[in-house]
Amino acid sequence: MASTRIVVPHAITVERVMDANLARLAQQVEFLVEIDKLKQVYRRTWLMDASRHENDAEHSWHLGVMAILLLEHAQAPRLDLLRVLKMVLVHDLVEIDAGDTFAYDDVGAMDKSQREQTAADRLFALLPPDQAAEFRAVWEEFEARQTPEARYAAALDRFQPMLHNYRTKGKAWQEHGITVDQVLARNQSMAEGSPVLWQYAKQFVADAVAQGYLNPAVEPTS
Amino acid sequence: MASTRIVVPHAITVERVMDANLARLAQQVEFLVEIDKLKQVYRRTWLMDASRHENDAEHSWHLGVMAILLLEHAQAPRLDLLRVLKMVLVHDLVEIDAGDTFAYDDVGAMDKSQREQTAADRLFALLPPDQAAEFRAVWEEFEARQTPEARYAAALDRFQPMLHNYRTKGKAWQEHGITVDQVLARNQSMAEGSPVLWQYAKQFVADAVAQGYLNPAVEPTS
Repeated sequence: MASTRIVVPHAITVERVMDANLARLAQQVEFLVEIDKLKQVYRRTWLMDASRHENDAEHSWHLGVMAILLLEHAQAPRLDLLRVLKMVLVHDLVEIDAGDTFAYDDVGAMDKSQREQTAADRLFALLPPDQAAEFRAVWEEFEARQTPEARYAAALDRFQPMLHNYRTKGKAWQEHGITVDQVLARNQSMAEGSPVLWQYAKQFVADAVAQGYLNPAVEPTS
Repeated sequence: MASTRIVVPHAITVERVMDANLARLAQQVEFLVEIDKLKQVYRRTWLMDASRHENDAEHSWHLGVMAILLLEHAQAPRLDLLRVLKMVLVHDLVEIDAGDTFAYDDVGAMDKSQREQTAADRLFALLPPDQAAEFRAVWEEFEARQTPEARYAAALDRFQPMLHNYRTKGKAWQEHGITVDQVLARNQSMAEGSPVLWQYAKQFVADAVAQGYLNPAVEPTS
């Protein structure tokens, strides 16, 4: 008798919880469907075999594995690797609307921040409010480059395309007429996240110049 | 005077540590270059807009975001999300050598395990020994489906292609003549990792049959 009084409300509660979970899941799934578009945001970077351009989803995956593998080279000891992985997995989502801005595109850089803020407003609003806030906070932490985790994540985000460029004999550098002084100026902040990565990158940049993969600095006309 | 005696050995030590770090980094970078090939391992799954097949690197990224977003739906409370992310980011690396085995390919499934073990032997051996062991352990944990983290990761790995199939009106199901009983039998273990995900998936599978995206079970000829 007592068991009847307990079991029935319990069954109802379980059913209601399942329904509430399913409703929330349905909203989360719409976000997951929307972000599939990241697989079609193409970058200037070429795959290692130079067969095609890389897209943002692949790039974000590559950074994830790099974050795990290269953690020992981070500037700060005892980083929160989970936080780093969250950052690298979501850092480019805004490019679904804002598009990829090439690292050396000074014109595109002028309104990049505004375009990306607008994109973040739309995209994260697809999520339940608590998760919209969480994802936005992760993205903003990455963008601000103030925490050790964000600096390490940003260092990887600079290192990876440089490595692709070097291993494809400077394909994207050559296509866009990039010079060594631009590469060094653009990427030197890598040292804040990982001095070792920056040391290594400078070595292959020097070799890229020696091999003719990367143009020397343009001499100012006097 | 004393400072000279201290500073010189210190400088040498710092330099040696940097050299050792750079040598280790060089080995890690070769692994990162090698795994770029995952971006060219194509799956049977179509992108959400059905414009092309998805590759393993993109798929792994998508699972990473899903793991973060859907954690609340995991069967086990208090999962180690970092462990889950490591698993989903590396789980398909072996397919660089072994290729993608379609979920419904019974012939391919017969020697899948052997092909993937051989691939793991080669790939992880590119890493420094301590990291080779760590990556191998992560991959084997995923494959064994024994821990709550592995079961959740495996549930996502089943859910994601099902969702792509449903949202592309059953494109890959139709191409390969898959029937609803195959889909349900193949994916029911999803419930071990997330009962809510499985409940949701069964709903859209039923709708897929109703819409004609997925063929009904073949009646046995009596």
